[in-house]
Amino acid sequence: MQHYSAMHTLKLTTPLLTWRGDSLQPVTLAYETWGELNAEKSNAILLLTGLSPGAHAASSDADPEAGWWEDMLGPGKPIDSNRYFVVCVNSLGSCLGSTGPDSLNPATGKPWRLDFPELSIEDIATGCWKVVEHLGIEQLHCIIGPSMGGMTALALLKQYPQAARQLISISSTAAASPFAIAIRSLQREAIVTDPNWQNGHYSDSCWPISGMRMARKLGMISYRSAIEWQQRFDRQPQSQFATTVYGMNFQIEAYLEAHALKFIGQFDPCCYVYLSRAMDWFDASDRRHGDLSAMLSQTSLQSALIMGVSTDLLFPLSDQQTLADAMAKTTIQHQMLALDCVQGHDAFLIDSERFGPPIHRFLS
Amino acid sequence: MQHYSAMHTLKLTTPLLTWRGDSLQPVTLAYETWGELNAEKSNAILLLTGLSPGAHAASSDADPEAGWWEDMLGPGKPIDSNRYFVVCVNSLGSCLGSTGPDSLNPATGKPWRLDFPELSIEDIATGCWKVVEHLGIEQLHCIIGPSMGGMTALALLKQYPQAARQLISISSTAAASPFAIAIRSLQREAIVTDPNWQNGHYSDSCWPISGMRMARKLGMISYRSAIEWQQRFDRQPQSQFATTVYGMNFQIEAYLEAHALKFIGQFDPCCYVYLSRAMDWFDASDRRHGDLSAMLSQTSLQSALIMGVSTDLLFPLSDQQTLADAMAKTTIQHQMLALDCVQGHDAFLIDSERFGPPIHRFLS
Repeated sequence: MQHYSAMHTLKLTTPLLTWRGDSLQPVTLAYETWGELNAEKSNAILLLTGLSPGAHAASSDADPEAGWWEDMLGPGKPIDSNRYFVVCVNSLGSCLGSTGPDSLNPATGKPWRLDFPELSIEDIATGCWKVVEHLGIEQLHCIIGPSMGGMTALALLKQYPQAARQLISISSTAAASPFAIAIRSLQREAIVTDPNWQNGHYSDSCWPISGMRMARKLGMISYRSAIEWQQRFDRQPQSQFATTVYGMNFQIEAYLEAHALKFIGQFDPCCYVYLSRAMDWFDASDRRHGDLSAMLSQTSLQSALIMGVSTDLLFPLSDQQTLADAMAKTTIQHQMLALDCVQGHDAFLIDSERFGPPIHRFLS
Repeated sequence: MQHYSAMHTLKLTTPLLTWRGDSLQPVTLAYETWGELNAEKSNAILLLTGLSPGAHAASSDADPEAGWWEDMLGPGKPIDSNRYFVVCVNSLGSCLGSTGPDSLNPATGKPWRLDFPELSIEDIATGCWKVVEHLGIEQLHCIIGPSMGGMTALALLKQYPQAARQLISISSTAAASPFAIAIRSLQREAIVTDPNWQNGHYSDSCWPISGMRMARKLGMISYRSAIEWQQRFDRQPQSQFATTVYGMNFQIEAYLEAHALKFIGQFDPCCYVYLSRAMDWFDASDRRHGDLSAMLSQTSLQSALIMGVSTDLLFPLSDQQTLADAMAKTTIQHQMLALDCVQGHDAFLIDSERFGPPIHRFLS
């Protein structure tokens, strides 16, 4: 668990009932905020994260370290903290302050690991809503969800239809596609077939490094794009890492290795597996709430901005179109923007020139 | 090693000098033929394979079992064996009849494994040319190369500029892209980090099954397309394989598992790693032969057909365009066809309706 000086925590006093019917306690939710809540409590924005980032979306006086969306959030930035009170919650099931499979199971005094209840995107949404309620906010001005965060946004609106007036969904989906499931399934397979996985009983001295390394590399392959790598790396040889007989000959291999090594120490394998599987299971439509447009019709949403990227392999434009088509059957004002960024799924983290202005305009 | 009743073998009487400067012996090359060589020896077509298929491209009187390109090759088919004498060679370095890392090293009496010389696509091409020479053919009417076979075709033309009058390059590339390198590098990592890999000293009772399974699944992810899987599988649940706590919930996962299980018993891990790495290294341009158009200009090619598929992630249309652009700087008559198949890279193996007619027309 990383401790940021700007991090707040909310400890729930009652068990959290999961989407699949389990009872989880104790539950801690870590979050950060930017800006000030106005007297009417009408200027709150909830920012939901992708799989791996924590609540530290941007720097602040309390923590000057740059966050994962530094260019997008802050005073005068597209998500303007001079105007809005922004809350970002570390996802339930993650390992960056909130309760997850690496938290202590009170029954054993050891980490939950595979004894953690089956986790759904709906549970992550519930955790976030607990924080919103705790802050005294009855309705959000806007929910902003990139990647997994967009799924969480829909899961939140499904369970709390009055949660927000606006939605910005970025490079996300209303239901995992078989292609995305295939990639995540293989990432999990890499982790759980690592001999050090030990059915979840890995330890500091026996860590599934090899599996996590491969999972992260496959992640990077699915997060970026062929065209970006052609421009950045082409066929340039690498010298950063020692090359064994089957080692790394090319810069692209060194790039993946460096990203993987960084990730291994940052994210718990079991939390990764739980969150990954939750994404596969997620479908904003279900028997109880009807199809996507029926579910959306039941919400208080007035307007929505749906953004996606032409080079995104994992959450392709067709996923954005599905959401836009469902919106079209409702009274929600909506706009879909297909951006021609080269960075694939990760473009929203990088290409603030393309993502910033439309988000700023939508929120103005 | 699989034995097909239609398989011929050529045992070289002198060592094969590899592209990287090693001397390999003994060398056996397995091949099959269809149709009859005419008196002028002017009707020969060389068919080069992708990474995993063997020489059995199609059925024949000698072997009625369907081959990997059954719909495309045979009497009256697009590659018409009533008209052409067709030769298909199992790639050097493979394990389906030709010499490769799983062949016996005469110095030790054990399989070569990692003691096998470093293999290049150029060496595979040399092996094929030895077969062509052995059959008394001085110049081929056409070389047809899908996937890795298209790289081998260019490697052959680079080394033997008078080898052919025509070329059909299908879903291939003149040089591996960083995206393709990333995927193959990760496939190799899955194999060589399997504890059973044992630095190449695996045995029948200690086989890198887990690594091969993941390598094949990643292969399938890169060979097919998101749109095909959406149409075929969507989010349908699976019941074929037992579902463990992190097991397979969706049909797409069962599909990948079934493909992987089939592949594990068919292909040698070390051969896979060697061929995979050879593809990464390959660049039809080099210091000796100049850039791609200079290399092509030195050949006897008169015409070429370049085919690719819009949904191909591994050898995208941009790779086909690069080859076409190089052709445009030569006197070679050429045509590029971008097909809208949904099956991605593998479309040439499946969509004979789209691939058959243009190949038939080109050869007529």
